[in-house]
Amino acid sequence: MGDIFVQSIGEFIGTLVLVLLGDGVVAGVSLKKSKSEGAGWIAISLGWGFAVIMGVYVSGFLGPAHLNPAVTIGMAAAGKFGWSGVIPFIIAQVAGAFLGAVLVWIHYYPHWQETKDQAAILGTFATGPAIRNYAANFVSEVIGTFMLVFALMAFTRGRFTDGLNPLVVGALITSIGLSLGGTTGYAINPARDFGPRLAHAVLPIANKGGSDWSYSWVPIVGDVVGGLLAAGAFLLLP
Amino acid sequence: MGDIFVQSIGEFIGTLVLVLLGDGVVAGVSLKKSKSEGAGWIAISLGWGFAVIMGVYVSGFLGPAHLNPAVTIGMAAAGKFGWSGVIPFIIAQVAGAFLGAVLVWIHYYPHWQETKDQAAILGTFATGPAIRNYAANFVSEVIGTFMLVFALMAFTRGRFTDGLNPLVVGALITSIGLSLGGTTGYAINPARDFGPRLAHAVLPIANKGGSDWSYSWVPIVGDVVGGLLAAGAFLLLP
Amino acid sequence: MGDIFVQSIGEFIGTLVLVLLGDGVVAGVSLKKSKSEGAGWIAISLGWGFAVIMGVYVSGFLGPAHLNPAVTIGMAAAGKFGWSGVIPFIIAQVAGAFLGAVLVWIHYYPHWQETKDQAAILGTFATGPAIRNYAANFVSEVIGTFMLVFALMAFTRGRFTDGLNPLVVGALITSIGLSLGGTTGYAINPARDFGPRLAHAVLPIANKGGSDWSYSWVPIVGDVVGGLLAAGAFLLLP
Amino acid sequence: MGDIFVQSIGEFIGTLVLVLLGDGVVAGVSLKKSKSEGAGWIAISLGWGFAVIMGVYVSGFLGPAHLNPAVTIGMAAAGKFGWSGVIPFIIAQVAGAFLGAVLVWIHYYPHWQETKDQAAILGTFATGPAIRNYAANFVSEVIGTFMLVFALMAFTRGRFTDGLNPLVVGALITSIGLSLGGTTGYAINPARDFGPRLAHAVLPIANKGGSDWSYSWVPIVGDVVGGLLAAGAFLLLP
Repeated sequence: MGDIFVQSIGEFIGTLVLVLLGDGVVAGVSLKKSKSEGAGWIAISLGWGFAVIMGVYVSGFLGPAHLNPAVTIGMAAAGKFGWSGVIPFIIAQVAGAFLGAVLVWIHYYPHWQETKDQAAILGTFATGPAIRNYAANFVSEVIGTFMLVFALMAFTRGRFTDGLNPLVVGALITSIGLSLGGTTGYAINPARDFGPRLAHAVLPIANKGGSDWSYSWVPIVGDVVGGLLAAGAFLLLP
Repeated sequence: MGDIFVQSIGEFIGTLVLVLLGDGVVAGVSLKKSKSEGAGWIAISLGWGFAVIMGVYVSGFLGPAHLNPAVTIGMAAAGKFGWSGVIPFIIAQVAGAFLGAVLVWIHYYPHWQETKDQAAILGTFATGPAIRNYAANFVSEVIGTFMLVFALMAFTRGRFTDGLNPLVVGALITSIGLSLGGTTGYAINPARDFGPRLAHAVLPIANKGGSDWSYSWVPIVGDVVGGLLAAGAFLLLP
Repeated sequence: MGDIFVQSIGEFIGTLVLVLLGDGVVAGVSLKKSKSEGAGWIAISLGWGFAVIMGVYVSGFLGPAHLNPAVTIGMAAAGKFGWSGVIPFIIAQVAGAFLGAVLVWIHYYPHWQETKDQAAILGTFATGPAIRNYAANFVSEVIGTFMLVFALMAFTRGRFTDGLNPLVVGALITSIGLSLGGTTGYAINPARDFGPRLAHAVLPIANKGGSDWSYSWVPIVGDVVGGLLAAGAFLLLP
Repeated sequence: MGDIFVQSIGEFIGTLVLVLLGDGVVAGVSLKKSKSEGAGWIAISLGWGFAVIMGVYVSGFLGPAHLNPAVTIGMAAAGKFGWSGVIPFIIAQVAGAFLGAVLVWIHYYPHWQETKDQAAILGTFATGPAIRNYAANFVSEVIGTFMLVFALMAFTRGRFTDGLNPLVVGALITSIGLSLGGTTGYAINPARDFGPRLAHAVLPIANKGGSDWSYSWVPIVGDVVGGLLAAGAFLLLP
């Protein structure tokens, strides 16, 4: 596994790939004139599942491939990861997510000009609520992230043949996307939401509007709370 | 595996997750203003497949992960599970299914208010027939559950590398959903239908109508019959 | 593996399941008032892939799970299966396919009455050409079946961890369906086409029309030719 | 693995299958009267994923199954493949891609006559930009191919149980298709684009227009550059 520095490089690369492919599928589905425009929620939920699979495969040989501060904090709270690695990991994850979003902007460069819908452009970067209701949105993110972290912890008690685990993690992401994503767009990962939102705010994206910072606390606080509750619940298991 | 009590905790957790993610995908596809609204039958059949996969992974280290009274009864009839565990398992499965449905209600809280279609709301919780014809619906549930339990028993005669089996079970669920689900919505699991139907009846869900108890016996009796027939058929195999 | 009789029971059961789930998904997508009505080609190609996966899993512990006369004949021609088993296997495969189609008829019983499109009803049972052109349709079936049998033979030269092989076979079926199915509906299996066509002819299905026997030779002769060519080509490999 | 000649036969067969199934799915979705007409981007991205999976399975026992000059060059640059094999491999890959496209033309023979859209016909063979902007298109191909080759190299540092690796490669292809394919149709493989474009140019395809040779350098140069950059980046990893 190597030391925390090498592992943090893994978190950076993995989260970069996760956001490049994850925000990439939303861009492809949402932006005008994209060949995948209108491919729908199946494309988005499968695309994010594959994005996480690839994020894990390209970084799993360098470290634990959390790629998500809620996972890192939850694992630390459950005693499965050292607290000293939490801050480096989160920095690497947010930096990777930011750079991944920059690459999405570059990759789809001519398409921003063609897209007039500010909400669609923001939605390519960061999540937002289907119905704005901070209490309900917060609860949704808590439930989604609880499901994520609880299942990841359960996977540590199972056995997986070589190379299978990332596919199962991808199935989990797609499952949460299909089943629990309809309310808030399932950030379930503070870095995945904050890094790209920051990129949206600072990049000179054609036709962009505001970055909806008033919502931005939900996928940070909600997801950390969800991860911590999952850690607590998991420790109660026989 | 541990004793029946620990295994029953596994059944409770696994069935809870199964219904949270399974009813969750139907909610996401059916409820108004959901981001996954209208994602269609592919989303539903894949979503239920992933729901079962995750139900098995999060509970398989505590017990056999039946998550379904028809499976438990069928396995007992086939001599693959002790009869003494049947009642505890069924209680745990129904309780988990009930609580999973409560969580779906909470997760999609603002969306019930937006959804005026009582059948869509009930359909998020429990199954119902495409064409109401109790004899035909009963037969459909028998065939679907026979397919489920027969295949699960066949899997016990195959060999699976570590961690693969739940994915194959998920493929089976998606297969039944795609191929046999069009008639009755493929309960193929009495707990999956009864627990959420009970939740629908007792929860103060906005815009809800009746819980269609007159149909509720079909996915109970039909599924148990299907499971028992599968057990019998499987024992006839060379 | 057991003797030819036991193996033939496996062929019967596996092909029955293959057609129940395979024709089932077409019925679900095509028949009126089905919950999966209109789910499209993705549903059909995934559904047939899962159908074959399940056919193999439920019969693979009894025999080689060819489930297809073109595979059986191709394997015999390539020296990978004894000629003495060919006739028993084909009889079992056709009988299983016939009974699987009967079960599809029963499963969707009230839906035939609601469906007025005779071509849709026949299409639930047997394949037919998108553009009727016997030479081109024949070539399409040869190419599709060649792809199937050649890949299955290639799989015998690879190594698969326990339980993975049927999933790869299912991926192959879905691949052929997505990529080569648009022309003739990819029978790529004489039993899968002839057995259900016979069921269509003899069953008292509401609203049914003719069984298009004039086309029926294409997925028989074409598929056997494709399987034999694949066997020959495979033997040329270094 | 055998010598370069045998390995090159593997590249030829694998790339042939890759293009037959890959261009095949585009033909099925794009050509008039195809049963899979209009199945959309999900079908295309899944279909190409399965195409690569099958390309690898049918050739992986003869050689490394690059099936892509950008991969071959990238692997050589990273020291993972001998430079002496590069030219034979590229010739075999382009020849296989050409022949695969010829088979797609034959397979869908009656459908070209029914299809009046010249762009759709060309798009069945070769890729093209959603928005023609050579700089942006070039960058898109660089990013897509970088992702492909970087991930393939990362896979060499992971461990995979027998037979799993090709499925993961297929997941990668589908992921790139869903997430990065919307801009240029993700050639990410010079042979996959050039071979079929040549077939389009020389075959007497009904209703065909020009072969857009002015764009053809993008998926050649861009993809080689992407592969080389990925090799360089990978070598920097700890």
